[in-house]
Amino acid sequence: MNLDLLSGLRVVESSAFIAAPLAGLTLAQAGADVIRIDLIGGGIDYARMPVMPGGRSLYWTGLNKGKRSLAVDIRSGEGRELVQALVTAPGAGAGVLLTNIGVPWLAHQLLAQQRVDLISCTIEGSSDGSNAVDYTVNCATGFPAITGGGSAERPVNHVLPAWDLACAQQAAFAIAAAAMRRQSSGVGAELRIALSDVAFSTLSHLGMLTEAELLQQERPSIGNDLYGAFGRDFATADGRRIFVAAISIGQWRSLVRACGLQAGVHALEQQRGVDLSREEQRYAARDAIAQLVEPWFAARSFEQAQRELDQHGACWGPYRTVREALAQDPRLGAANPVFETIHTAGVGEHRAAGSVVRERGRPRGPMRAAPLLGEHTDQILLEVLGLDSAAVGRLHDRGIVAGPDSDPLAPAARTAARATAAAS
Amino acid sequence: MNLDLLSGLRVVESSAFIAAPLAGLTLAQAGADVIRIDLIGGGIDYARMPVMPGGRSLYWTGLNKGKRSLAVDIRSGEGRELVQALVTAPGAGAGVLLTNIGVPWLAHQLLAQQRVDLISCTIEGSSDGSNAVDYTVNCATGFPAITGGGSAERPVNHVLPAWDLACAQQAAFAIAAAAMRRQSSGVGAELRIALSDVAFSTLSHLGMLTEAELLQQERPSIGNDLYGAFGRDFATADGRRIFVAAISIGQWRSLVRACGLQAGVHALEQQRGVDLSREEQRYAARDAIAQLVEPWFAARSFEQAQRELDQHGACWGPYRTVREALAQDPRLGAANPVFETIHTAGVGEHRAAGSVVRERGRPRGPMRAAPLLGEHTDQILLEVLGLDSAAVGRLHDRGIVAGPDSDPLAPAARTAARATAAAS
Repeated sequence: MNLDLLSGLRVVESSAFIAAPLAGLTLAQAGADVIRIDLIGGGIDYARMPVMPGGRSLYWTGLNKGKRSLAVDIRSGEGRELVQALVTAPGAGAGVLLTNIGVPWLAHQLLAQQRVDLISCTIEGSSDGSNAVDYTVNCATGFPAITGGGSAERPVNHVLPAWDLACAQQAAFAIAAAAMRRQSSGVGAELRIALSDVAFSTLSHLGMLTEAELLQQERPSIGNDLYGAFGRDFATADGRRIFVAAISIGQWRSLVRACGLQAGVHALEQQRGVDLSREEQRYAARDAIAQLVEPWFAARSFEQAQRELDQHGACWGPYRTVREALAQDPRLGAANPVFETIHTAGVGEHRAAGSVVRERGRPRGPMRAAPLLGEHTDQILLEVLGLDSAAVGRLHDRGIVAGPDSDPLAPAARTAARATAAAS
Repeated sequence: MNLDLLSGLRVVESSAFIAAPLAGLTLAQAGADVIRIDLIGGGIDYARMPVMPGGRSLYWTGLNKGKRSLAVDIRSGEGRELVQALVTAPGAGAGVLLTNIGVPWLAHQLLAQQRVDLISCTIEGSSDGSNAVDYTVNCATGFPAITGGGSAERPVNHVLPAWDLACAQQAAFAIAAAAMRRQSSGVGAELRIALSDVAFSTLSHLGMLTEAELLQQERPSIGNDLYGAFGRDFATADGRRIFVAAISIGQWRSLVRACGLQAGVHALEQQRGVDLSREEQRYAARDAIAQLVEPWFAARSFEQAQRELDQHGACWGPYRTVREALAQDPRLGAANPVFETIHTAGVGEHRAAGSVVRERGRPRGPMRAAPLLGEHTDQILLEVLGLDSAAVGRLHDRGIVAGPDSDPLAPAARTAARATAAAS
């Protein structure tokens, strides 16, 4: 894959939805061999929206790039034994399980009987053991009460599954750290991460929890303004929108120069007896500052504003939709090695992101697309589990495992199904 | 610290704001020795809001828990040499630099002359080299156009600095992975991660980029509803709000049972010719489903609704403000090992989060609070750099380094300053 940081590490992933698959994606793009355990016919999230006209999920194929797939009937004892054997297979870099599906037959204690240095990382919903997803955790964090001009009575959810993202990266981190410890000490690890802990710990890390506890205050709801300094969005003469941030003193000075606000800022400082070079005073005076800035944007096209902001090194960004970003933003283009055009079966050619980590001085390997279900079944059984081809054939015959032709959303399978339907 | 996954690893952090300090926090709470390079008197973010009445920042102390601090004058050549020596000090677990401040005297190539197996991880704003912060990246992702009922013309920013969070965890992951590779191969790594890549790659991983490219469609703006299945917030009889999610078929069946919707759902399915056991059909019929659910919540107090939802195993969460979460949510309480009460100088006793990773079967070490600036200056110079106390004394005398008594926000320093002011 893109990087070789984790080459030699093999991770077996039994997962659904976002956090666990995204953790596996991070590991795979950093060079680990990530093997998905897939239900024959697909698991709970295999057809999740958005989907192509032929049914293949852009959500699933986005989250499972560069992994191998073993399609197996895990309701059968024999299927489960295959998976257990795969997780506990020998090899210094093997013996790692990533999951968000707590099933007794994949319990750490059970598998550790076969491989004492097992590393398992289980992503849970809520730390109290209850069922939870990003949305049902987010509502309890206080963020909806202060997002988008929301209030406690009219909360506004953010759309980004932010806790899933942070949880995924924490899980990838925990696995890499545990693999490093095992490499030097031989000790395995039974790791758990709850989505609710990821969310609530963020309140602590950003100071919001202590603010609530010791200062007895809630963060105010201030729309698109940033908290603690100056930053908000403005409309240009041609109806575009731009966010400008003046958090650091350097960013503030650049904004003042770019927008020619020196006199206005000086007058404001005199009038109010404030020092706007101090971030907390910019924050207190944010509405008055915005009144100075607004006419400058209103008098300029997006292009003009961009040029003048850049001339002075101001910190700003354009508002774009996803289609606009794809069409207009060079950071999604060919000059950025993080993005490549790949081909995904049932989807076609499309832009896709590899590892966001770039390593200088070493070649970046090509990205691989998401597999079909069972695309690597035979390869895994033969090479990793060391079965012979007769044994693999018997497993297929008895429906314990399946290859990619059994993927209901594979282009070939669909064609075959149509042909059968037409012939019948 | 909490875990010993990374014990033996020493990371030197030269950072400001959120992403890099949070990456260092993740490493520290997993057992790494993270040494902050702090300006004497404090860097650009040292007093960032929210702050205690005495001036200590809850933001800074939240993001820098469990690290050591070396206060040093990095404008002096001698101060820079000390930092360079610290980054490139010998030892199998040393030689790691985490930074978001690109200064030539900490460039990888330069430091690698002293330590060829150096690992450096640099967090950048934008992949094109331009200045960027979370807000000026977020606006370009398309999320504000679909958050909180927003549109391209009236974008709604989320308040959570979600890209900073995800970037931080990616950086911690990359460092752990590179340290593991170095442990086995001896090879260092020059790593870079751009905040903009973290954001845009998420569009790819969640399927939104390909949706825009191949289906030529933008994700709709649907307020608090979740995309692709059923989930939204409802008001209870006593004015509280609850989010219920029915993404999986199990969650849907639980919700239908809990709210006694069997007849209503059957009628709706008949009337529309749909099958609401399918997530995409629940999504299409979400408003009609919500009309069935709404009266159920409106007729129950929060307590009643909670009890009945739990009885049927429905997936739900309460809306809370941060103060309410702290007061009411047991997941922030003493039963959760992730949270502890710690004492931070200049702040006092407060609840705080340690590593979200829990490791079973091994003791969890205690959390440490954020340092004062220079709290560990002498310790680091004596023990890590091997200076003698006379040499350390001379560095203090000449203002090249400082101890915690020079921290302008340290309680003792403030008391001393007040005493001086009163005497003069």
